[in-house]
Amino acid sequence: MEQRVSLITLGVADVARARDFYERLGWRGQEVEGTVFFQAGGMVLVLWGRADLAQDSGIQDGSTDGFGGVALAQNVRSEADVDDVVTAARRAGATVTRSPAKTFYGGYAGYFTDPDGHVWEIAYNPGFSLAADGSITVPDFDSS
Amino acid sequence: MEQRVSLITLGVADVARARDFYERLGWRGQEVEGTVFFQAGGMVLVLWGRADLAQDSGIQDGSTDGFGGVALAQNVRSEADVDDVVTAARRAGATVTRSPAKTFYGGYAGYFTDPDGHVWEIAYNPGFSLAADGSITVPDFDSS
Repeated sequence: MEQRVSLITLGVADVARARDFYERLGWRGQEVEGTVFFQAGGMVLVLWGRADLAQDSGIQDGSTDGFGGVALAQNVRSEADVDDVVTAARRAGATVTRSPAKTFYGGYAGYFTDPDGHVWEIAYNPGFSLAADGSITVPDFDSS
Repeated sequence: MEQRVSLITLGVADVARARDFYERLGWRGQEVEGTVFFQAGGMVLVLWGRADLAQDSGIQDGSTDGFGGVALAQNVRSEADVDDVVTAARRAGATVTRSPAKTFYGGYAGYFTDPDGHVWEIAYNPGFSLAADGSITVPDFDSS
């Protein structure tokens, strides 16, 4: 199996509401038959009905609330950028679950959840290289 | 907020078990203080203790089983590649929740869950451009 991810699909209760949230944050996507596709670097973030996603996956959907066990993160270029994105998310309707603060690894980060409870961390991490195109690279920890 | 994802963190019950699963699939990562980082294109897939991730996010972790509302996907280059990856995943300890089959959009896909229930779709989708480096591009649906 190649070491890469092509799509992240977020199961949502209401595709229009979820799309509106990400568009308030400045994202632009395309909707096809009730599915929204956001190009995100070399990957795609998808919004799709949670029940449809569960059914398509062949999985029973037991609960719709609470922590799903997954967090997405966006690394940004400064502590001020963390504050700005978390503020923008709050204004777009996110719930801020951890206000931006210093982290144990010497960075600065905050967390919010989108209208369906999907978790996002916005982080400034000086230890991870962030390229102009937004791609990030894990440092070689053995030599660092 | 820029339209990109830097990291996907999967909360897991046992980091060593989860790492072993992905390494059986051929992935190679680095472990630092109980956290495993896999470079995945311009992004990073992270394995971290589920309780640690919930606590760091400022979120109550109510349940640890079942559907988390998120699916990751890897698009591959042929139907045979779908079969091969799903077979390799089964051998590595995955639960195949949907055996590979034709999809409604003219592709071919199967689903499995990793040892912590995180959902993966392996898909051949002739409508999405897949570059040599594994990056994918959403088609322009309006003109297609």
